[in-house]
Amino acid sequence: MTAHRVNDLFGNPDSLREKGIPLYIQVKKAIQSAIVAGRLLNGDVLPPERDLAKYMDVSRVTIRKAIDELVKEETLTQRQGAGTFVSERVEQPLNHLRSFTEVMRDRGKETTAKWLDRSLGIPHEDERQALQLEPDQDVVRFYRLRYADGKPMALELATVPSHYLDNPFAIDGSLYEVLEEQGKRPVRAFQRLRAITVDDQRAQLLDIPELAAVLYIERTGVDKEGVPVEFTRSWFPGDSYDFVAEIHDTH
Amino acid sequence: MTAHRVNDLFGNPDSLREKGIPLYIQVKKAIQSAIVAGRLLNGDVLPPERDLAKYMDVSRVTIRKAIDELVKEETLTQRQGAGTFVSERVEQPLNHLRSFTEVMRDRGKETTAKWLDRSLGIPHEDERQALQLEPDQDVVRFYRLRYADGKPMALELATVPSHYLDNPFAIDGSLYEVLEEQGKRPVRAFQRLRAITVDDQRAQLLDIPELAAVLYIERTGVDKEGVPVEFTRSWFPGDSYDFVAEIHDTH
Repeated sequence: MTAHRVNDLFGNPDSLREKGIPLYIQVKKAIQSAIVAGRLLNGDVLPPERDLAKYMDVSRVTIRKAIDELVKEETLTQRQGAGTFVSERVEQPLNHLRSFTEVMRDRGKETTAKWLDRSLGIPHEDERQALQLEPDQDVVRFYRLRYADGKPMALELATVPSHYLDNPFAIDGSLYEVLEEQGKRPVRAFQRLRAITVDDQRAQLLDIPELAAVLYIERTGVDKEGVPVEFTRSWFPGDSYDFVAEIHDTH
Repeated sequence: MTAHRVNDLFGNPDSLREKGIPLYIQVKKAIQSAIVAGRLLNGDVLPPERDLAKYMDVSRVTIRKAIDELVKEETLTQRQGAGTFVSERVEQPLNHLRSFTEVMRDRGKETTAKWLDRSLGIPHEDERQALQLEPDQDVVRFYRLRYADGKPMALELATVPSHYLDNPFAIDGSLYEVLEEQGKRPVRAFQRLRAITVDDQRAQLLDIPELAAVLYIERTGVDKEGVPVEFTRSWFPGDSYDFVAEIHDTH
């Protein structure tokens, strides 16, 4: 990492002398600006702390404090032994009903999955309500850890009434593609999002820190007649996704 | 809390003897079912741990473990000295472009705000990019903590080019209403969502635990001609909101 590179990224270090604003906040802003302005891109390595400290003429403690906050805010990601990176985020459209496989395929990413659980049985209360089932109508469940280019990107627990899909071992890739073959691909869905703190087990599966923020999404997909065909709960690591949507005034 | 009440909520305790599933998971599911089925409503107090333990015939450690997980997942909320509640959530539509004031007013909630910062100055890099401004075009900023019925519900930092609104002290309630008076209410917006871990200062303002999960939303609102009129960043406590949306297949 040359001084030239640091200079390109952060411009004139004298700009770090705004009065009345703590230095680490100014360092933080300098890094944020470099990202916003596209001088640092997703996945780029941040210059070493000592180079930043030297160039900005502040202590390494100050640099570290700024970086720590940006890691907490998930702008930066730290990997053991590999340094500090600008977090790589997938921009996932929120307005479109696409399966994980389709979203990732559009981005040129190869998807794989690890099966965590497959079952056939009577619905739990929440599944029964979402899918509008009688208590004795069976469901099949697919619980998978999903990867894009080898990186764990989502936990997905899908429940489908067994009269649409009675073999929990029939799915290999996309659930939507299998439902489509049966003319039962959802055409509409009701989606519910929530920011939650991940539990230990899911953190381990997703390879993120305990108590990291995840986006939890519940989706109930319905067919052309409005009949529910899937109830899917997904956990997306906060540091891997930006969910984007265009919205309109209904004033 | 009578035994009758616990019975009504959780049904036959014998159902808690599913083989091969840890007891605390079964307790957790019993509580979740009571919520999903509407036997426990938003804001309801959970029966005391000792009553639950007695009725379900499990140890208080088991009850506590189940409750701890539900608190982590933000299904339940604990308030010092006041017990354990079913989290009260605001269902906020994600597809509609509404201001905080309008969303809360629709729910019959009274909104108040505490000013954290108001400023007029040159745009930061991210504001300049979002609002498509020249570096010397001033912006006004409104940073507020927003309350609904006295409870802190959102941190909101809105930036508006100063040629639409040049007095940072002109806003009292809804920014959108003030922009509307000038014919500059956004009709469309691009929204970007992210689950993040809140920093200490924002946690304190929102009265939530440090490192709690929050939903961070960046919104760029544009007028009829597609010209950006606002760039707003908001932080919503994860335990207070469900963001809901209906989505359609674009397959």
